[in-house]
Amino acid sequence: MYFENLEKEMENEENEKELQESHYLESNFLPHIALDCVVFGFDSEQLQLKVLMLKMKHREDWGLPGGFVGKRENLEDAAIRVLKERTGAKDIYLKQFKTFGKANRTDEIIEGNTNVLWLKRRFITVGFYALVDYKQVKPNKDKLSSDCGWKDIKDLPAIMLDHQTIFEEGLESLRRSLMLRPVGYGLLPEKFTLSELQNLYEIILDRKLNRGNFYRKVMKYQILEKLNEIRNIGAHKAPFLYRFNKERYDDAVTNGLKDIW
Amino acid sequence: MYFENLEKEMENEENEKELQESHYLESNFLPHIALDCVVFGFDSEQLQLKVLMLKMKHREDWGLPGGFVGKRENLEDAAIRVLKERTGAKDIYLKQFKTFGKANRTDEIIEGNTNVLWLKRRFITVGFYALVDYKQVKPNKDKLSSDCGWKDIKDLPAIMLDHQTIFEEGLESLRRSLMLRPVGYGLLPEKFTLSELQNLYEIILDRKLNRGNFYRKVMKYQILEKLNEIRNIGAHKAPFLYRFNKERYDDAVTNGLKDIW
Repeated sequence: MYFENLEKEMENEENEKELQESHYLESNFLPHIALDCVVFGFDSEQLQLKVLMLKMKHREDWGLPGGFVGKRENLEDAAIRVLKERTGAKDIYLKQFKTFGKANRTDEIIEGNTNVLWLKRRFITVGFYALVDYKQVKPNKDKLSSDCGWKDIKDLPAIMLDHQTIFEEGLESLRRSLMLRPVGYGLLPEKFTLSELQNLYEIILDRKLNRGNFYRKVMKYQILEKLNEIRNIGAHKAPFLYRFNKERYDDAVTNGLKDIW
Repeated sequence: MYFENLEKEMENEENEKELQESHYLESNFLPHIALDCVVFGFDSEQLQLKVLMLKMKHREDWGLPGGFVGKRENLEDAAIRVLKERTGAKDIYLKQFKTFGKANRTDEIIEGNTNVLWLKRRFITVGFYALVDYKQVKPNKDKLSSDCGWKDIKDLPAIMLDHQTIFEEGLESLRRSLMLRPVGYGLLPEKFTLSELQNLYEIILDRKLNRGNFYRKVMKYQILEKLNEIRNIGAHKAPFLYRFNKERYDDAVTNGLKDIW
């Protein structure tokens, strides 16, 4: 009897908290508009690509870290804020890639049993992706979630709503971006071998690249500086070390790699 | 005196119409979310790229054709509907390219003198672009606009809100897409010369391309079929005609041109 009462009390308390959270959201954010972040984490030791996921309260499946846009907050600032809250990381390159607006995409929540009444309306969500050094991020859950952590992109848990699609399109967008812009700064050590850079590209693209072609192309883009140092790995032929020419790298991020046509 | 009264009456009538329109919008569409279309029209005779623009009532400047998302309408369907309403054209390839969400982007309208109260709130807008055959489109103005027409992208009129930015980012996105996907189907005659295809690319990219490079690259992508016909233009060397291999073209639209890496 005592435990039953305690359970009921805790449930009431939980309901009260959710109603308060709902009121807070209603007062501070634009209705109908959400954002979701596909945060890719590169694990340079295990050579794996991971994605940051949260487990929402009242649900068994996982979702992408997301949030809402303050009534007078710029959309991009909202994404930066959400990412900082969930990862502790700032100065992360966030790229908006697509907005998801199927009419029924949040019906599951509207018809579900959440007490966060704010969520009981149709939401369109703006997708952002980021690529970060896995080790430099400390996952934090938010008020609506019960867990937060890295998941191997090859072994994802059950995923809620259309977040599987958002994840897949974010990954496609990251892959396409490799054709237009360089990647690697902040993910590799300051000095790295060409094999290490090629590994990163292979992991993102999920296929093997031809060593000679990769070397020719990456050198043509002139974003690397060859150093007068070698990595002594005891191999027959010790590989040279390279670093990014930050000025040219930033220029290529802004203006794109060399034109294809 | 008579004319003054008439003027007042017409103004009242106009106000009444706008209030009705506002009520209609409030009842049928999601608040805070708009969409805008950058419709590029290729003029294959004058070799120009044009963009479709509308002039809103109560304003001297022009804007992109836009609209809102029905309460139970998919975002992409809303864009297709808006484009059809403004151009009469259907089966147009529409590409979502970016969502614009600066906090102050519609302050001008919120603080302005429109009677369409629906508009007096912050709107985030989803940008789509399309590339169409200029001759096949009949521009139609909407209820909120007083004029609609094609503008040469090299000679644009004054543009409202952040629509100049939306236009520029749409153009950038179209240009980037040339690195990933083929363009030309529906814009060139069924049979065309390589020069005509190169012209189209040069107009979109706004720069001259090397003839030999263009030929090598476009042939490498295997989206063209060389015909056993020549275009008799009285030139010393009459050029061969080509057409798109529609199957390979569609495959390249879906899966991208050959990988760069």
